[in-house]
Amino acid sequence: MKNIKLTIEYDGTRFSGWQRQNNALSVQEVVEKAIYKLTGESVEIFGASRTDAGVHARGQVANFFTGSTIPPLNFTAALNSKLPNDVSIVQSEEVFENFHARYSSRGKKYSYKIFNRKAPPAYMGNFYAHCPQELDFESMKKCLNYIIGTHDFATFKSTGSSAKTTIRTIENLTLDREGDLFVMEIIGNGFLYNMVRIIAGTLMDVGKGKINPEDIPKIIESNNRKLAGKTGPACGLCLEKVYY
Amino acid sequence: MKNIKLTIEYDGTRFSGWQRQNNALSVQEVVEKAIYKLTGESVEIFGASRTDAGVHARGQVANFFTGSTIPPLNFTAALNSKLPNDVSIVQSEEVFENFHARYSSRGKKYSYKIFNRKAPPAYMGNFYAHCPQELDFESMKKCLNYIIGTHDFATFKSTGSSAKTTIRTIENLTLDREGDLFVMEIIGNGFLYNMVRIIAGTLMDVGKGKINPEDIPKIIESNNRKLAGKTGPACGLCLEKVYY
Repeated sequence: MKNIKLTIEYDGTRFSGWQRQNNALSVQEVVEKAIYKLTGESVEIFGASRTDAGVHARGQVANFFTGSTIPPLNFTAALNSKLPNDVSIVQSEEVFENFHARYSSRGKKYSYKIFNRKAPPAYMGNFYAHCPQELDFESMKKCLNYIIGTHDFATFKSTGSSAKTTIRTIENLTLDREGDLFVMEIIGNGFLYNMVRIIAGTLMDVGKGKINPEDIPKIIESNNRKLAGKTGPACGLCLEKVYY
Repeated sequence: MKNIKLTIEYDGTRFSGWQRQNNALSVQEVVEKAIYKLTGESVEIFGASRTDAGVHARGQVANFFTGSTIPPLNFTAALNSKLPNDVSIVQSEEVFENFHARYSSRGKKYSYKIFNRKAPPAYMGNFYAHCPQELDFESMKKCLNYIIGTHDFATFKSTGSSAKTTIRTIENLTLDREGDLFVMEIIGNGFLYNMVRIIAGTLMDVGKGKINPEDIPKIIESNNRKLAGKTGPACGLCLEKVYY
């Protein structure tokens, strides 16, 4: 049996998320079905990140075991011929038997895109969180250094998370602007449930003047979810890369 | 009666194009229906560019006459509340009675986006032309100055165009690259039918080594459509701006 690692890109708009579930279409199910069509094997694939409904990926990673004789590099094109347009295999390779997309991961990079204009974005609109109220970019930038580093991020966690500890390390957090588009990028060793979307929502509240940038350290220390901003919409989020 | 100018953004994926037609959903029809819902008036709107099926816009312009007492600037938000997610009014204003979105236009800017990677793009995939074969960016850049200027562009015209003359002026043509994404931008005083998509397809053929950059002047002079590249896919094209 070979252990195959896939790098997967998807438009999450019409999916219930990464993880397979009854009565709703998941990305996992679509990829597993493509593998079945190709190899005749019913496999379970393990994804690095259980992205939520509407969340996108340019670098989701998953692995599965196969007895197929298809050369590992050829899975990319072969699976793409069986997949719908909104899911694409970017890379396939054989990895060691003990590689697990989720447990072997050392960190992840996400992007969060905010379209800041009164009118909702129609062009690429499924890939942006829409914020009609004018955002103060400079205030938002002031928050970044407070968030970077090792902290207890319980403030930025939705209930439903089963993580043993809420301490995480944010290696880098940037915010760039090109016209109406604000792009946040965040790299960390792990993320709590909805953590990136809550950080994005908190930055938006800072941009609107609802939260003072200088209050961010106190908000982190409070471990009080209510002091952070709203969870940002799923469509702004994209899993960019998984690090091993 | 007031003459209202609208600036319209749309994701062209599910539309048959800008222009109203029987048995297929057009952007024009969707906007006219939104105006009807808002004002009770059955108006005809005049668009600056009759974009084809699958072509997008960030700056389509259209105008219509109304007896409504709604303040002109308020049409933006009022129409957006009646429009689907893939069509958005970016701006609305009152203009002089003799303004016509199409006939008053002095020029247009289009972008054409090419995703150059073996695997098809799934993230924002509806907004890119996919080119799996590796493109030589530098060769493609060499073509730009040959195309800029005033020329007879009959070579870059699909049949079905009813234009009186095929002479057009390209004010500017640029090509930029960010990773796998190539973005062409073109500004001109007018464009023949499929002209931007044929120029993009020709640049792709240059990038693939099928056409020599130095042959572009001869190809333009030939007035022979067959010497140019294929018409690039509609989804890569976006009407960025109309100049008045």
